[in-house]
Amino acid sequence: MTGSPAIAPLAISLGDPAGVGPELIALAFSQRRELALPSFFVVGGANVLQAAAKSRGLEIDVEIIGAPQDAAGVFANALPVLAEGGDGRFLPGQPSAEGARLALHSLELAASLALSGAASGMVTAPVSKSELAAVGFAFPGQTEFVAHASGVEEEDAVMMLAGPSLRAVPLTAHCALSEVSGLLSQELILRGCRVIHKAMQRDFAMDAPRLAIAGLNPHAGEKGRMGGEEETIIAPAIAQLQGEGIAATGPHPADTMFAPHKRGTYDVAVAMYHDQALVPLKTLDFDKGVNMTLGLPIIRTSPDHGTAFDIAGGGIARPESLVEAIRMAAAAALCRAAAP
Amino acid sequence: MTGSPAIAPLAISLGDPAGVGPELIALAFSQRRELALPSFFVVGGANVLQAAAKSRGLEIDVEIIGAPQDAAGVFANALPVLAEGGDGRFLPGQPSAEGARLALHSLELAASLALSGAASGMVTAPVSKSELAAVGFAFPGQTEFVAHASGVEEEDAVMMLAGPSLRAVPLTAHCALSEVSGLLSQELILRGCRVIHKAMQRDFAMDAPRLAIAGLNPHAGEKGRMGGEEETIIAPAIAQLQGEGIAATGPHPADTMFAPHKRGTYDVAVAMYHDQALVPLKTLDFDKGVNMTLGLPIIRTSPDHGTAFDIAGGGIARPESLVEAIRMAAAAALCRAAAP
Repeated sequence: MTGSPAIAPLAISLGDPAGVGPELIALAFSQRRELALPSFFVVGGANVLQAAAKSRGLEIDVEIIGAPQDAAGVFANALPVLAEGGDGRFLPGQPSAEGARLALHSLELAASLALSGAASGMVTAPVSKSELAAVGFAFPGQTEFVAHASGVEEEDAVMMLAGPSLRAVPLTAHCALSEVSGLLSQELILRGCRVIHKAMQRDFAMDAPRLAIAGLNPHAGEKGRMGGEEETIIAPAIAQLQGEGIAATGPHPADTMFAPHKRGTYDVAVAMYHDQALVPLKTLDFDKGVNMTLGLPIIRTSPDHGTAFDIAGGGIARPESLVEAIRMAAAAALCRAAAP
Repeated sequence: MTGSPAIAPLAISLGDPAGVGPELIALAFSQRRELALPSFFVVGGANVLQAAAKSRGLEIDVEIIGAPQDAAGVFANALPVLAEGGDGRFLPGQPSAEGARLALHSLELAASLALSGAASGMVTAPVSKSELAAVGFAFPGQTEFVAHASGVEEEDAVMMLAGPSLRAVPLTAHCALSEVSGLLSQELILRGCRVIHKAMQRDFAMDAPRLAIAGLNPHAGEKGRMGGEEETIIAPAIAQLQGEGIAATGPHPADTMFAPHKRGTYDVAVAMYHDQALVPLKTLDFDKGVNMTLGLPIIRTSPDHGTAFDIAGGGIARPESLVEAIRMAAAAALCRAAAP
């Protein structure tokens, strides 16, 4: 070991100012010493953050910085906020077009700072997709935006959910369950698994990451007795991946692959649909799940929850997921910085 | 409390003699004192059980009984075996037609003893569906056989999986995932939930069991944006159940309903498909899952695993699931016996 290389601070986008993002950022900052969090700064929203801190009874200072490189010097004493663009007064739980525009500006600027290298990665606080759409945001969500901003095709920007017990990637996600079978293809599996393989090497320092690939049907189809996708699509894709030197196994019956004694046999579970990945993840690691976008030139993580407008300002939203998102982004940044 | 009523012993069917059933029965019996297990007897297979005990290094006696009522007197000193029908020598891991016939005879007799009341319930050790089919067994599995033997329509015999952390019922089970949507109907949900409701009252002594009903699609469809089954099928069925006085809620997003803080808000999770129920169950309670058939005039439980021919005789199969199946059957029998 030669010590950690110095890395740029992380950029945190504000998220919707009416959601739980600002108060969770303030909470995470207030625990930076106990949790040994790396330096970060927030993009915009100084007033929002100060009000959010107050709502949680936190006595923290917010300090405007002029450039990302000022964050590290400020971080010990105050929450650094890069103040470009507007700010304003927003009420928790009451989303507005003005708030959505602030969230969007913060997201866009955070991405550009990560792309330029001024930030070592970005952590995105939650936004409201419908509020963003109403102010002209043309993407289904932040993941698609970040992929586009990074010049990566959407199919190569892969959503991974990770908690202390499990990393899982759903290869299809926000579609009806009845559409899943039609969306599966060898190409989808190959493309996704290649991205996962590379990302585990680059961002998690694994030499030979082990990918456990789930079947689609009960008991992985039992040799075709309950659905044929395992034999026609999934198994041939696994054989191809193995031929490429990727440590892929399966198709595994989904019901047993997340049991405690199985989880230690792989590094990432590759699921065929949303709930096949999200049910075990949230069952095991409800408060600590992190959403990481794999396959990007930049590092991007986010907490695995939404704006939670219904509890924003109510003093009960928990920061664990954001904290873990910050930690995972920082660890990945160190990995990349340490690479030869 | 006026003390537990005296109940008849439980009947345990032998399962496939080449599988793990016999050794697990012997193991459970050997732990009867520490675990305070209720009296049970095995239907047939005295030689098999003695050999299986020896293979696990257990010094237990097997004693032939002539009638179920003799079991309680024998149980403290020896494993009671009701010796009707043949026995023989069977090798672990080597299924045979003769073995399948022994398993079938044991299953049939155990069911008839439970139906007559000579046994207070039955616990079925694992059989091989394909081996049974090869000797003329006309049912897909033991559950369907037991339903038929009890004079209950298959749709009203409902499979529940239960562990220390969760009870879950999949309303569809052994079909391809792509077929699930087409199999769902309001009638299926109504019929299943009515059976669950009554069984929780009768076998678990719950006055007003709380049924949490899952959605089918990610995020329970998000108001139809990702699949419409929640709005057209599931929600109307829940409204109907509520109108009948059943404490049904949902449709709940599947990914969050199994999180620790949610599991305390219901007594049974009702899932739309196999893995939606089995993934959380096996993730949480891998070794302790019990399969219970609800809606029968008799009590029937089984361990939540198969014959495991590959490890039979190898000294490593674990008895926790069978032990829990015995306990659950006995608790249900006490519930029924105590009912006014």
